[in-house]
Amino acid sequence: MCHLHNPHLQNKHLFDFVNGDKLNYNIYPLLSLWARDRGLARPKARGGREYTCLLLMICQHVSIKTTIPLSLSSQPLNSLKSDEAASGPKQGPTFQDGQRRVDYVLTYHVQKPQSVRRKTSRFADYRILRSLRRSLSMMRSGDTPPSKEDPEIAAHKHRLDYHEDDKRFCQTEFEDNLREMGLELEKDEGRINLFIHKVTMLFYPLLSRQILYEEWASYSVFYKYQPIGLIRKYFGEKIGLYFAWLGVYTQMLIPAAIVGVIVFLYGCATVDNDIPSMEICDPRNNITMCPLCDRACSYWKLKTACGTARASHLFDNPATVFFSIFMALWAAMFMEHWKRRQMRLNYIWDLTGFEEEEVCSYFSPDYVLITLFQDKKGKLTCTDRAPAYMMGLFIMLLMVGVTFAVVFGVILYRISIRAALHMSSNPTARSNIRATVKGTAAVINLVIIIVMDEVYGAVARWLTLLEVPKTDKSFEERLIIKTFVLKFANAFSPIVYLAFFRGRMVGRPGDYVYVIGSYRMEECAHAGCLMELCIQLCITMLGKQLIQNNLFEIGIPKIKKLIRRRKSDMDSQQQQDYNMTLQRHEKDHFLGPFVGLSPEYMEMIIQFGMVTLFVASFPLAPLFALLNNIIEIRLDAKKFVTEVRRPIAARAKDIGIWYNLLRGLSKVAVIVNAFVISFTSDFIPRLVYQYMYSPDGSMHGFVNHTLSYFNVSDFQTGTAPLQPMHLGYEVQICRYKDYRETPWSNTPYDLSKEFWAILACRLAFVIVFQNVVMLMSDFVDWLIPDIPKDISLQIHKEKILMVELFMKEEEGKKLLRDNHTNQSPFQPRSRPASHTPSNC
Amino acid sequence: MCHLHNPHLQNKHLFDFVNGDKLNYNIYPLLSLWARDRGLARPKARGGREYTCLLLMICQHVSIKTTIPLSLSSQPLNSLKSDEAASGPKQGPTFQDGQRRVDYVLTYHVQKPQSVRRKTSRFADYRILRSLRRSLSMMRSGDTPPSKEDPEIAAHKHRLDYHEDDKRFCQTEFEDNLREMGLELEKDEGRINLFIHKVTMLFYPLLSRQILYEEWASYSVFYKYQPIGLIRKYFGEKIGLYFAWLGVYTQMLIPAAIVGVIVFLYGCATVDNDIPSMEICDPRNNITMCPLCDRACSYWKLKTACGTARASHLFDNPATVFFSIFMALWAAMFMEHWKRRQMRLNYIWDLTGFEEEEVCSYFSPDYVLITLFQDKKGKLTCTDRAPAYMMGLFIMLLMVGVTFAVVFGVILYRISIRAALHMSSNPTARSNIRATVKGTAAVINLVIIIVMDEVYGAVARWLTLLEVPKTDKSFEERLIIKTFVLKFANAFSPIVYLAFFRGRMVGRPGDYVYVIGSYRMEECAHAGCLMELCIQLCITMLGKQLIQNNLFEIGIPKIKKLIRRRKSDMDSQQQQDYNMTLQRHEKDHFLGPFVGLSPEYMEMIIQFGMVTLFVASFPLAPLFALLNNIIEIRLDAKKFVTEVRRPIAARAKDIGIWYNLLRGLSKVAVIVNAFVISFTSDFIPRLVYQYMYSPDGSMHGFVNHTLSYFNVSDFQTGTAPLQPMHLGYEVQICRYKDYRETPWSNTPYDLSKEFWAILACRLAFVIVFQNVVMLMSDFVDWLIPDIPKDISLQIHKEKILMVELFMKEEEGKKLLRDNHTNQSPFQPRSRPASHTPSNC
Repeated sequence: MCHLHNPHLQNKHLFDFVNGDKLNYNIYPLLSLWARDRGLARPKARGGREYTCLLLMICQHVSIKTTIPLSLSSQPLNSLKSDEAASGPKQGPTFQDGQRRVDYVLTYHVQKPQSVRRKTSRFADYRILRSLRRSLSMMRSGDTPPSKEDPEIAAHKHRLDYHEDDKRFCQTEFEDNLREMGLELEKDEGRINLFIHKVTMLFYPLLSRQILYEEWASYSVFYKYQPIGLIRKYFGEKIGLYFAWLGVYTQMLIPAAIVGVIVFLYGCATVDNDIPSMEICDPRNNITMCPLCDRACSYWKLKTACGTARASHLFDNPATVFFSIFMALWAAMFMEHWKRRQMRLNYIWDLTGFEEEEVCSYFSPDYVLITLFQDKKGKLTCTDRAPAYMMGLFIMLLMVGVTFAVVFGVILYRISIRAALHMSSNPTARSNIRATVKGTAAVINLVIIIVMDEVYGAVARWLTLLEVPKTDKSFEERLIIKTFVLKFANAFSPIVYLAFFRGRMVGRPGDYVYVIGSYRMEECAHAGCLMELCIQLCITMLGKQLIQNNLFEIGIPKIKKLIRRRKSDMDSQQQQDYNMTLQRHEKDHFLGPFVGLSPEYMEMIIQFGMVTLFVASFPLAPLFALLNNIIEIRLDAKKFVTEVRRPIAARAKDIGIWYNLLRGLSKVAVIVNAFVISFTSDFIPRLVYQYMYSPDGSMHGFVNHTLSYFNVSDFQTGTAPLQPMHLGYEVQICRYKDYRETPWSNTPYDLSKEFWAILACRLAFVIVFQNVVMLMSDFVDWLIPDIPKDISLQIHKEKILMVELFMKEEEGKKLLRDNHTNQSPFQPRSRPASHTPSNC
Repeated sequence: MCHLHNPHLQNKHLFDFVNGDKLNYNIYPLLSLWARDRGLARPKARGGREYTCLLLMICQHVSIKTTIPLSLSSQPLNSLKSDEAASGPKQGPTFQDGQRRVDYVLTYHVQKPQSVRRKTSRFADYRILRSLRRSLSMMRSGDTPPSKEDPEIAAHKHRLDYHEDDKRFCQTEFEDNLREMGLELEKDEGRINLFIHKVTMLFYPLLSRQILYEEWASYSVFYKYQPIGLIRKYFGEKIGLYFAWLGVYTQMLIPAAIVGVIVFLYGCATVDNDIPSMEICDPRNNITMCPLCDRACSYWKLKTACGTARASHLFDNPATVFFSIFMALWAAMFMEHWKRRQMRLNYIWDLTGFEEEEVCSYFSPDYVLITLFQDKKGKLTCTDRAPAYMMGLFIMLLMVGVTFAVVFGVILYRISIRAALHMSSNPTARSNIRATVKGTAAVINLVIIIVMDEVYGAVARWLTLLEVPKTDKSFEERLIIKTFVLKFANAFSPIVYLAFFRGRMVGRPGDYVYVIGSYRMEECAHAGCLMELCIQLCITMLGKQLIQNNLFEIGIPKIKKLIRRRKSDMDSQQQQDYNMTLQRHEKDHFLGPFVGLSPEYMEMIIQFGMVTLFVASFPLAPLFALLNNIIEIRLDAKKFVTEVRRPIAARAKDIGIWYNLLRGLSKVAVIVNAFVISFTSDFIPRLVYQYMYSPDGSMHGFVNHTLSYFNVSDFQTGTAPLQPMHLGYEVQICRYKDYRETPWSNTPYDLSKEFWAILACRLAFVIVFQNVVMLMSDFVDWLIPDIPKDISLQIHKEKILMVELFMKEEEGKKLLRDNHTNQSPFQPRSRPASHTPSNC
């Protein structure tokens, strides 16, 4: 065997390619797809024009470029497009004969040892470029390789001489294997040098990218289905599955968005018939409310909250309850739909029998270091790993703690700013208090979320590296789980605070809860926190999507590109001229690297969380998500096609751990929605009032029922308003929103019986809602089979056919053997093949 | 092809056997197992002694018996046991040479047309017997077959003559196929007649039953693991899986039973420290309770409930909460454990690649009729099926309604009997009132459950037949679901009533709820309904298990056997003499038929429900179940080995729908237990009292807190006790167990604030309990991999080996073909096989 076989030192995929007998994924399918696109049944077919494939390799120190023109015999071109591409002389580089077009350029970017790297980093890219150019020019001119020109290269070559035997052995084996695969190998100038070290592999295919760019990575085709087959051919199954998933998700968002809009419109239409907000807005209900802050604030009239109350009704109406049940079922439907789609793709892409191999090596350079480290130490035991796990857990908890601290900080900011603004004598400032506080706080929250997101991504990666997972897959899974926990906590903790904690721990007039000295805990607006939750969700969704995803996804790669160019020590004029002379594959080499699908998935999962978890408070979330995703698909497409280097095609049968996260989210969504409806919205108190307390069974008097009485003489010293006559009359009794006993009862200001009754009803609603919706989801799950009927039938049929084929083969083999033994080729077949399946 | 190919007319398994090319299950494995047991590697091995297998077939009208001695060459015997068996002349029938022992006797019992059946039913068995005997005697004596003696047979034979050609064709093919399978077929007297119609197949193997009987179907080996491998060999995978499942379940019950007993003992140990029951028993707490029934009953002292209160504590203590969490996790563990065991068995039994075929035909005669009916009408459409479905649904609802009505009837019985007994002047009767009523009601309930169970089984079967399911599997699944729903409702509705409804709708003194005129709804004893629930569970479990399962399972087959013997028109002396002369396989023919595994599974599932659903109220349930199952395994074993005809071996990969039912039950169990703990037990009120209302944080005063006040002047007219001075003093205020306002409050007898607070706490507990336990179960589910590590590794290895083998085969074939083409057998191998897997 080849010395390259050590999996820790060797990129497995490359090894597969070199070794040839496993040449089934990296280059072979591309070659055969390429052949198939041209109407060739198999690469082996004889006759016709010849296409060539340039296999170009650049090694670390030795820039001996090897060109292995793999000639594939083909039929004349069928499609016009590729015909055009082939005939255009400017479309790409050709071999030295000027006729055979280069279709694939394969370059290997070598990982330098750390010590060398720092010194040469500025020149590294340029050197690679030079070698790329040299290789091509050489091919055109037909010169002998200028390997002796460069003393640095020669020195390194000398150093590597003792590997020569091994290399030659590998080379022979490689060539043999390529030939065996049906590729006719033509050696360029009779020698091929393969220096294969730890490398990251980059494909620069010059084909079919144009089609993808036109038919997929364009905003003008946003209404079309994605060309998933082509995407898969170009990027591999893993990325194909991501876009397929994104497509299914976006498609499924359409009905959700429509229903969400209808629910919202229902809210708009019924806002004038809503009795509680009518009562609040009615000037005849002359209700005096207790001050909202100590000393600086004074008593206020309930009817000033009219606008908020009316706005609240848009999101807090019975249709919301229906909508959250709908969305829970929608989530179950979506999961099922995706399972079926995945199954179908698996079948079409011929992955049904595919099992993911446990790949020991990892493409990331960090990981290579880790594995080297691991090699030194031998196998890591549990005790070796324990400190890393402990540390991981500890830092995760710390980070979640930081998230909570940040949320608390924003709360404090809101409280103090509000108090300061209340103090100020500027009337304009005071009138805009609420808007100002809400707006700035939400923006601060957003900025913090975006900044912390980046931090958490780095922390999760670092923690996973510390754990030294054994396999590629395990590394990815651990990283994803950690990132998910941190980013999820980051994105949702302000929302959870708003939904479930804000306004619950405020105390009551005369006995407020104070934090850090004299700051009173913030209350919700009169109509509940739902409105504020809604605003927060809206800002987070829009902000995260617009700023983080779109701006970052387009902006950061552009900036990175710019910085890379700066480093190459050329002024802009030189640069431009230089750019003009660059070949397509040379330009591509300077694109940013592909960083994996995790950020894309993560973004979508967080969005899925927004759409499902708090949908009860914000029925427009699916619409927002839909609009974002329509852009997102094309944006990702553009990015993958033009902004980053072509990723290594990876096989995958499913979307892996993301499916489990989605499932988990849709389960959690049920209970979260139950709590939002019963605790954050006024749905349950209204129902309870209507059926338990209302004298005439209508909602009239509900507002009065929700307000408790407070005797102003019970204010704690120093907390009474400074301007008690602000409203123009002396206030004896003010009202506040809570269910408490009256000042004149035996137990003044205790929680009243109504409070407990409503609490019991809220909790009962949670139990009923959770169990009913879970049952319905399970029912949907059971109703829709995981495998589409036609696919399962097809698979069954194919199995039967295969068995039949196998039987025939066996029969034939036996016959052949019999004939061979008897040496009488004309012996009649003694036993006819009667292995037809019973047609039950 | 053979004319027997029509699947609707043909028993598929038999067809497989006859056709030979699919002779892979029914007889072939038995033959090869039989050969393997004797130390033979394969049936084809040469040399050594010869064993024979008698293949005996009895057709409907023509009793031409055919003996196909299948001779299998074997090595000398290895095991002493089979050597003994072979040497003993009395051990079984032999062939006519007196030396070759008969190992298998295969008989076919023919389904007669309905019209003929009624006339000949009395003679049918006898005729079959005669034919059996004749066949054996013939073999011994070496006579020619006496087919012409019997005019009836001759007539029928004549009638079947036109089938002769087909038959002969089949026969030739059959023989060919048997030879192909490696069995040397020796024809007895040179002719074989196969008359194969719709038949049910019965195997009478004379081997390995003895071992099963000694090593498995005996109570003396109850502590041993079951010989699952042997069971599977003898009964097939389906029954093997049932016993494996039963084994795993029983094994898993051991820790549950131990923990349950510990919890019970904890209750026993702490009964003297329980403050509430101490307070009830304390004579200083002179609490006067309101009468338990109208007029006849009088006021009573709380301390008379002392015994009940102390007994309640045994089952209603904090350890119960722990135990129900434990049992929820236990259920999750059990499911996981079984999945792993099943996977392991699948691997060992080589079923990993096996897919269940959709079998069109059904063994049951009813089903054959249905399929015939179906054939006449062609394919059934949805509209054809709709009425049956509608009717099914309607009758199911009706039946569930009947169950509820029965429960209500028992409630009425209890109420009226109690009232009657209260009226009676007999002091002994009055003192034993509670015990009498509880006892008789529980027994009546039990009897009704057992009777209705049989009715429901029949109804479910009938409904499923009406639906005409397409496949065997679908028939079974539909039948199981229907039976499950009905039997489950039947078994659990009295328990559910006791747990959640009894004592909730009683009203309050002065405003009781009356049913059907003047019957007051029944209340629970002072310490809650948990005690009564416990008694009911205990009686149901013991009663069902003892009476229904064990008595019925042993008794009914015995009675049936007796009746069958009666029908054969012989007096007892004749019978005895006759029995003495019968061969083993002749005796076996008169055993009851095998009715499927469904009743066995159903029994266990209901038991699983009892163990998991209401475990919070009865921690001894797992112990009871364990004791029952230890007996049950051996009882079922005995039944299967000696009481019923040997069932047809059926292949199965899993326990099918039963797994889903178990999963569903364990999910429902979580919420049911949550409700039992929070609503049926006093756990939550105690906690609430301790932390919210208790003046000193202890339980002192809890009893007083749970009792409301009632002013005796507020009794409705005609409901006040007839003997108000029963206790010796005039009662002004009596107490009753409820949380209501005092008579002197503003809103007398309204539900108090405490009621709502406790209700809210109860509901909150349900939510927390349900979600925490569900999360923990999911965690257990996730923690334990479905496939044992060693098995998954093994499967992976085997896959690699198979690919390698396949590659080598291909290589060899290619080589062979090359050689054949070149006709030069000594050409050196040009390409060495280098397909070693990469050792990553």
